[in-house]
Amino acid sequence: MSPAQLRVYRDLLDADRRWAAATRALLRARGWTLLNLIGAPGGGKTALLEALARVRPPLPAGAVIEGDCATTRDAERVRAAGWAAVQILTGTGCHVTAAAVHQALADLPAAGPGLVFVENVGNLVCPAGTDLGGDAKLAVLSVAEGEDKPLKYPILFRVARAVVLTKTDLLPHLRFDLARCRAALQQVNAAAPVFELSARTGAGVAAFADWLRARAAAGPPPA
Amino acid sequence: MSPAQLRVYRDLLDADRRWAAATRALLRARGWTLLNLIGAPGGGKTALLEALARVRPPLPAGAVIEGDCATTRDAERVRAAGWAAVQILTGTGCHVTAAAVHQALADLPAAGPGLVFVENVGNLVCPAGTDLGGDAKLAVLSVAEGEDKPLKYPILFRVARAVVLTKTDLLPHLRFDLARCRAALQQVNAAAPVFELSARTGAGVAAFADWLRARAAAGPPPA
Repeated sequence: MSPAQLRVYRDLLDADRRWAAATRALLRARGWTLLNLIGAPGGGKTALLEALARVRPPLPAGAVIEGDCATTRDAERVRAAGWAAVQILTGTGCHVTAAAVHQALADLPAAGPGLVFVENVGNLVCPAGTDLGGDAKLAVLSVAEGEDKPLKYPILFRVARAVVLTKTDLLPHLRFDLARCRAALQQVNAAAPVFELSARTGAGVAAFADWLRARAAAGPPPA
Repeated sequence: MSPAQLRVYRDLLDADRRWAAATRALLRARGWTLLNLIGAPGGGKTALLEALARVRPPLPAGAVIEGDCATTRDAERVRAAGWAAVQILTGTGCHVTAAAVHQALADLPAAGPGLVFVENVGNLVCPAGTDLGGDAKLAVLSVAEGEDKPLKYPILFRVARAVVLTKTDLLPHLRFDLARCRAALQQVNAAAPVFELSARTGAGVAAFADWLRARAAAGPPPA
């Protein structure tokens, strides 16, 4: 080859980017909408999925890909709630990788268009910067964590397509300033809708489910 | 040089390890005990430091190095509570680095032996695997996060020298199984003492403060 034909593999080692591209294509082929739940440990992500399994009419046929460092506990919980579920174990990893999610997606039965949730490892920082491929990142924030978190962890809240404020049943027992939290979210990301709900009581879950139905109807992002 | 004299710089680029070693030496020179508070976002680390500022007699002269992605809010809070405080901003970083902590320590006034706290970025995974140099890692877990977290995030709980279970005033309002949490902690790390406390009411803070006094009296780890 002449120097003009020098071949450059710019992203040969950027495997994550290639897995993300493969996932985008897979989502389009299957008609799946990929929702990436990101929140702190104990923020209520699993309980949210349990509550979403109870909404009627059911959400469009879907599945849950659970991420956890060390246990299959969350996958067992959401499966018991009615979801098709698989587990990614990350070991010392602080988030699920694009490669692992792609493998899990490829192994799911092609059950028709609908929602696929990823419940990421509890972490407000690392998963926010990871492109899984066509995923809509949803920030899950528990009112037990304090109203200042959108300002302290802006990386996640800036990229979130929606914010789910969980455990609102605890508000009477907390010094949590809801108005300040809403203002902080507005400051960091004015475009993302905020859903305030309690998975325990069910309050507010229906409105979030309606938004999810609209996302599913819109289908996966175009190429 | 002959091949026999080939010089090998094994860890030349392992800057973190060298900063950690420098911090170990600094702690010994100053008589400081470095305590690295690691917990989820909203786990109550800052409120714990505020509560520790109120114990009487005061804890041995100390300081707080705050880690945060984007704000100086926590440093302002603990300074208002009475601590000498500095802030490390990590931006997109998910934990404070050994280099940043060393710089912050070196800049502190040499006010005599005592405790220096690092409040890490809220994260149960990444800070647990980072050696700051002579630091004792303390796991901070809020009862609002659920009793299964020691099993789901064992990396932190295995290396913790002590576990602080915070927000116990919320227990009447939660489905939190204290016995199961204690059993999970025992399973993952039987050696670490567990302190159950509420920074809001002050219950349990004195026992933790006593443990901290004993740590300070023992001094920094030997070379």
